[in-house]
Amino acid sequence: MAYDAMTLADVVMERAEILGAISEEPQLLVRRFATPTLRQAMDTVAGWMSDAGMNVRRDNIGNLIGRYEGVLGATKTLLLGSHLDTVRDAGKYDGPLGVLVAVACVERLQQAGRRLPYAIEVAAFADEEGLRYHTAYLGSNVVAGRFDPAYLTLVDDDGITLIEALRSYGGDPSALAADARDSADLLGYCEVHIEQGPVLEALDLPVGIVSGIAGQSRFTVTWRGMAGHAGTVPMRLRRDALCAAAEFITLVEQVAREHAGLVATVGQIAVQPGASNVIPGQVTLSLDVRHLDDGLREQTIGQLHAQALSIGERRQIDVTWGVVQEHGSLLCARELVALLGRAVQAQGYPIHELPSGAGHDAVVMAELGPVAMLFVRCKDGVSHHPAESVAVADVAVAIDVLQEFLELLGRADGR
Amino acid sequence: MAYDAMTLADVVMERAEILGAISEEPQLLVRRFATPTLRQAMDTVAGWMSDAGMNVRRDNIGNLIGRYEGVLGATKTLLLGSHLDTVRDAGKYDGPLGVLVAVACVERLQQAGRRLPYAIEVAAFADEEGLRYHTAYLGSNVVAGRFDPAYLTLVDDDGITLIEALRSYGGDPSALAADARDSADLLGYCEVHIEQGPVLEALDLPVGIVSGIAGQSRFTVTWRGMAGHAGTVPMRLRRDALCAAAEFITLVEQVAREHAGLVATVGQIAVQPGASNVIPGQVTLSLDVRHLDDGLREQTIGQLHAQALSIGERRQIDVTWGVVQEHGSLLCARELVALLGRAVQAQGYPIHELPSGAGHDAVVMAELGPVAMLFVRCKDGVSHHPAESVAVADVAVAIDVLQEFLELLGRADGR
Repeated sequence: MAYDAMTLADVVMERAEILGAISEEPQLLVRRFATPTLRQAMDTVAGWMSDAGMNVRRDNIGNLIGRYEGVLGATKTLLLGSHLDTVRDAGKYDGPLGVLVAVACVERLQQAGRRLPYAIEVAAFADEEGLRYHTAYLGSNVVAGRFDPAYLTLVDDDGITLIEALRSYGGDPSALAADARDSADLLGYCEVHIEQGPVLEALDLPVGIVSGIAGQSRFTVTWRGMAGHAGTVPMRLRRDALCAAAEFITLVEQVAREHAGLVATVGQIAVQPGASNVIPGQVTLSLDVRHLDDGLREQTIGQLHAQALSIGERRQIDVTWGVVQEHGSLLCARELVALLGRAVQAQGYPIHELPSGAGHDAVVMAELGPVAMLFVRCKDGVSHHPAESVAVADVAVAIDVLQEFLELLGRADGR
Repeated sequence: MAYDAMTLADVVMERAEILGAISEEPQLLVRRFATPTLRQAMDTVAGWMSDAGMNVRRDNIGNLIGRYEGVLGATKTLLLGSHLDTVRDAGKYDGPLGVLVAVACVERLQQAGRRLPYAIEVAAFADEEGLRYHTAYLGSNVVAGRFDPAYLTLVDDDGITLIEALRSYGGDPSALAADARDSADLLGYCEVHIEQGPVLEALDLPVGIVSGIAGQSRFTVTWRGMAGHAGTVPMRLRRDALCAAAEFITLVEQVAREHAGLVATVGQIAVQPGASNVIPGQVTLSLDVRHLDDGLREQTIGQLHAQALSIGERRQIDVTWGVVQEHGSLLCARELVALLGRAVQAQGYPIHELPSGAGHDAVVMAELGPVAMLFVRCKDGVSHHPAESVAVADVAVAIDVLQEFLELLGRADGR
């Protein structure tokens, strides 16, 4: 009987392996939204939920929700969960870990014959990565009542519309709005997820508490100078777009290093004409800036934009600054963060709060009520890659922390 | 009768237009080595050479050589010329201008019934750009006796070997070695060419004298760091290959600016994985360094290489420094440069010597004897582009300078 966390963690690791073998392609892991492969993963998890004493249902977008009732007369519900869809060539833990740890905690309650003063629901969301329709959070958007019917006309790479995909999957597109969850009985949402970064590993901590999910701005910056022969145009007569861009990239790094928690990344760069013997005439680069503090993010962007224009002016390079995407940060609910902190300390670990630079279903679930997240250390900070790795001992800590959190919440709240 | 330089310059401009219309593709100018199109251009020039009183022959690589005899008993020969092949989407002057100005000078001699104390040969080389077989100077290599028989097995983009192309063109591949020119009677080689850079325009000078052709080193530098999530890896834990490369690019520009005549260019850059939300794990860039002084070029490269390694060490980025190509500089013959200088001054212009950062047939012809080059101002320094443009007045100056050079050489040398 799987009572202790280490045994439960072994089960979680085994189940992550089982899910990791359920893929659309034989040589790598990929599970897109509304595919038979995702259905197979959902059905597998549904079996584990049932084994853990949960009543299982599916909604029309394809989310799987298992419910474990509270004590008789309990009126409130805590939502746990994460997603089962993946990126292409994914690791085994991004998403599934949060679902499996939640199921493990319920399993332990059931095996102990215990009920909490509130019900627990574990959601396995059908689309967080957005791989198939290039729009994230389809699953949690339905639960949060935020699903935009315009999404139904989106087309995947095979020419299949979202509405067709949903029907093939067995969902009723016209019933999506009715799948929105009532927030009246919700205590909140708590998601366990791998960190996808190297911070906890560097601090030698198995888990960390997410303070919030960073706001993000994404830009395309284009530098237009003058192409020319690499052998015949003297340095002082050049208007080299790549030299301007390089000066900017160096500055982006320097500015980001000046503020704790700020990350700024140039991940893409394209040079025209792009020949070894031709001075770059045009460069286009991407800029991604994130911070938990929206004010600091906006201030940084203003500073970088002004400096880009100043670099351009000094070098006679035309600079175009295009906004691709901007959204504000989400702060986790302090009362849930505090309970997670006490749960971490109860396991003998120090509290470390860290922002999440990546987006998660918790961002959407915040529409319904307070949210919290527990990060689990992952090896080398690697994610979205088959090398994604989590230690079984850290999973055991996550299970114990989540279990303690459930207990503390029952004492603090409930009924 | 086209006696004065301005009229001759008009003729040169008209002929450049005629040649500019002889192209393999209707919408842009391209004349590759050993094509019917190049044959048509060669035949057209052969007609003009004949009109100028020259005896015309073709060698087995496809070069066209027109000979205008000197006075009776003259034993020496001066070689003039340039090339008639082009890059793809070329301008009208890179190559043809040097051939046409040389023919114009001979035409003026013939119309005046004059012979010089030496013979003049004007070469229209069949391949300088190397567009078809990705190896430059096929034409002048044959004249210089440097043609490597291994070239015969090169294959173009259509799968045609060089030996097949030569045979279709009418050349005898087995006779290429015999086409090497004897250097015994050669006074030297003088090539008129557009500058392909902005220096003369900036100085408001119609022509400049080439001091030499810069040595060139070309490298591929690869930076290997660690890819990661742009939202989750803090700045201090990153090993961003693009930030390292950007620091290097900025340094390359700075170092090149410190030395007169030094040019250094990063023209290509590729980032892996290359997504806006992923920290660059690997960057590959090209580095092209040129200077007339081989020692300074080599010293600069040593400095840049050491600094690249130092950037890599500080940032924990693995740096690979690969040599693509290296060749030393060629100094023009001082006695010919001095004569060109006197010819320029005789036209009322100051002498301005400048290095050529681009390679030319003169580099190869230096195997046979002393070489010199006269650069003609081009608009905005643009070359290898349909916008390539030369002023008719500058062409007139070039004709007068070359004519004066021929006269001065006749007095200084000859017989």
